[in-house]
Amino acid sequence: MEPNLLTHKQQLMLDAVRKLIRRGDTTGLERLLGKRRPVEVAGLFPHLNDWEARNLVNTLVARDHASAARVLLEVDPPVAPNLLAWVERDDLVKMVQSLPSGDATALLRYLPEETATEVVQLLETTVSEEVEELLSYDPDTAGGLMSTDVFVLKEDVTIGEAIADLQRNSDSMAMAFYLYVVNDADQLVGVLSLRSLLTHPPETRLKDIMITEVLRVKTYTDQEEVAQMVAKYDLVAIPVVDDFNKLVGIVTVDDVLDVIREEATEDILKMAGTDEDDMVSRSMFTAVRARIPWIGVTLLAGLVASEIVRAYLSTLESLVLLAGFMPVIVGLSGNAGNQSAALVARGISLDQMEARALTRYILRELRVGLALGVLCGLALAGFVRLRYPDTLVLGLAAGGSATISMVAAMLFGALSPLVLRRLHLDPNMATGPLVSTIVDVLGICVYFALSSALLEWFAE
Amino acid sequence: MEPNLLTHKQQLMLDAVRKLIRRGDTTGLERLLGKRRPVEVAGLFPHLNDWEARNLVNTLVARDHASAARVLLEVDPPVAPNLLAWVERDDLVKMVQSLPSGDATALLRYLPEETATEVVQLLETTVSEEVEELLSYDPDTAGGLMSTDVFVLKEDVTIGEAIADLQRNSDSMAMAFYLYVVNDADQLVGVLSLRSLLTHPPETRLKDIMITEVLRVKTYTDQEEVAQMVAKYDLVAIPVVDDFNKLVGIVTVDDVLDVIREEATEDILKMAGTDEDDMVSRSMFTAVRARIPWIGVTLLAGLVASEIVRAYLSTLESLVLLAGFMPVIVGLSGNAGNQSAALVARGISLDQMEARALTRYILRELRVGLALGVLCGLALAGFVRLRYPDTLVLGLAAGGSATISMVAAMLFGALSPLVLRRLHLDPNMATGPLVSTIVDVLGICVYFALSSALLEWFAE
Repeated sequence: MEPNLLTHKQQLMLDAVRKLIRRGDTTGLERLLGKRRPVEVAGLFPHLNDWEARNLVNTLVARDHASAARVLLEVDPPVAPNLLAWVERDDLVKMVQSLPSGDATALLRYLPEETATEVVQLLETTVSEEVEELLSYDPDTAGGLMSTDVFVLKEDVTIGEAIADLQRNSDSMAMAFYLYVVNDADQLVGVLSLRSLLTHPPETRLKDIMITEVLRVKTYTDQEEVAQMVAKYDLVAIPVVDDFNKLVGIVTVDDVLDVIREEATEDILKMAGTDEDDMVSRSMFTAVRARIPWIGVTLLAGLVASEIVRAYLSTLESLVLLAGFMPVIVGLSGNAGNQSAALVARGISLDQMEARALTRYILRELRVGLALGVLCGLALAGFVRLRYPDTLVLGLAAGGSATISMVAAMLFGALSPLVLRRLHLDPNMATGPLVSTIVDVLGICVYFALSSALLEWFAE
Repeated sequence: MEPNLLTHKQQLMLDAVRKLIRRGDTTGLERLLGKRRPVEVAGLFPHLNDWEARNLVNTLVARDHASAARVLLEVDPPVAPNLLAWVERDDLVKMVQSLPSGDATALLRYLPEETATEVVQLLETTVSEEVEELLSYDPDTAGGLMSTDVFVLKEDVTIGEAIADLQRNSDSMAMAFYLYVVNDADQLVGVLSLRSLLTHPPETRLKDIMITEVLRVKTYTDQEEVAQMVAKYDLVAIPVVDDFNKLVGIVTVDDVLDVIREEATEDILKMAGTDEDDMVSRSMFTAVRARIPWIGVTLLAGLVASEIVRAYLSTLESLVLLAGFMPVIVGLSGNAGNQSAALVARGISLDQMEARALTRYILRELRVGLALGVLCGLALAGFVRLRYPDTLVLGLAAGGSATISMVAAMLFGALSPLVLRRLHLDPNMATGPLVSTIVDVLGICVYFALSSALLEWFAE
């Protein structure tokens, strides 16, 4: 299975779309696209060149603002702003107007700040007030993620009335799986499944059958915490309340899926010392800017390492062969440190790293480090002894410092995500070039200090 | 926000549970746990020592097999087998019997193969047949993930009959958000939302209002592909069919969430050269076994590097200072290669790396590599020139090989996930020690080859 290749059906559609764009056949294009789901149309963009993409955007907008908006909302987040840049301001206003406020806000967040402000000013007052409030939430919180299209009923309503209400508003809610129940002050007091409407007599009041223990999040709850709650309790949606427990929206599981994928991507790219912009941007400048910080740190660490070697130049001159084993010491400790750091950082992300067990965990890494360190040290010393039978110091220095620096690297690797978290930084940074470079320098220090001590000792 | 610390409420509950266990007060324990959700009870286990955990398992099983089974299903997958090992075989049979077949299969998968076979033999025939069929699916496919408790109706049924049916089976389906419609041969022909039952007259036949374009997966569809479909189309559940289009189960979004988190963890740990067993196991042996393969590869690569240095020993002897810049060359090319590899591997995982754009992408990495390589090469050469004004060769060799090896590393890093995928291996392996070690050896080759050539050239 090669996930990134188009299926045959998708390939046929793509070919047809490109042909119609080349021919300028907008009628044919409109007919072809009219039948497709927004997400399928959105999936075409990565395969089009700029000219084709621009043509497709124009055709979509000219046909129908609402469905053009739906398509652009399904485009991968980092690509959407480029496509929206081709849309005229008046069309943007109509597109935003056509969407429910949650989606409207999502679309506005793709625009540059000035353009977004201009568009909001041109909206009808009723829409702009809601949108402005939603825009005020941090996009990485429940408030920034939520949809405001919730099916809400008062607690005194009967099931019969609820069903009638649902029939009237039949198509406005995208994901109505739960009914939320509020009191007269609009405070969240209960929840009902749609199914319970069918399984109780119509005259029953909602407050008599609703579940009153409702899991909820605040508008300012971090999106990662929202995702963890939805995943932990197997929810399809979670209600969002303000500080007065007033229901203001819901976060649905499809948004949570996106959050989890996004956070994983962030973690992975951070581990490698770059970021998401780098993954999607076509610009060389963005790529260089994303990668240069850690490359710079590596360069600096390398220069520090060169100073250490310089300090031990006389040691090195008396046994030039020492240089040959610098890479293996550095490589082993870097790898060992990274393994420990990745384990602890991921454990923290998954909420599996309990505070009480930390001491036990650190002790375990220490023992694993000793085991691996002694194994590698012996193997290395053995190899050196066989390959260079004339010198005893070389084998002892290489083997001994492999052991010492691996143990140190694993302790350092396991501790640094914890220290980063304590400093309110991202624990995943530890797995990146940060730990590798520090551990590299450490390994070289250990190696030369040990070598020079051994050389002196054997010279006596 | 420190996600791994217990909330105050959780801490109070944990303290109470531990106290009751210590006192042997099973009645108190049963009363306390009776009110909690299974996932909350399951969350206690990581915070208990073995003796406490064993006591808690015994109390749960003695109280009620069905709810004990529910709790153990919510325990983190790698921990559950340890807990189940304390349960007697007769109790296991009763626990499996108490669950719907999908969950029963999940529980059986936690048991060692022999125990599972024994338990299945002791089940009632009706249950064991279903369970045996489910056990036959690969756990990483839709078949292994699906639940068989689906609300299925024939296409000729009316809405009124459907509602009556739903009322009769009111509590058997955990996540009934969609109704699936089949024909007389049990083939999937349509889908309905629960809501549409409320918004159409009772005499309407399902086939007249059902949506006939139903997204579906096969029993053998890989779980990653299932997750991608659910995420792409914002589904709450996806039906699973066999090769004859017969509906056999559904995969719900809560399972998909788990898959996505699990795959991200796998990717991240693979990048660091270890695996999930290592993260959860307390055994040192498991940890060493998980990490030793890549540590071994690193050791071997280091020995190869030492052979390269040995081959250039005369070069090194004539300019010992060369040794000081080996770590920086190795560090820079390792980092640069890893950044490229992580970007491409993650792009493939997220299905964003389109086949058509590959050439463009490789060219971009080449340009970014040149830019970063030249920048670092100049900085390094400048530093060396200032620090060691007597030698021109050192600066040229260090700067030149930084540039060359970084460009080579980035090309290699970008290409290797693609090559791995072509070989049907996991593209994420590229980001691990594999690329780092190869790139390290490459960097050292370039460095010494260039240094020796420069030394000869300047000596002439």
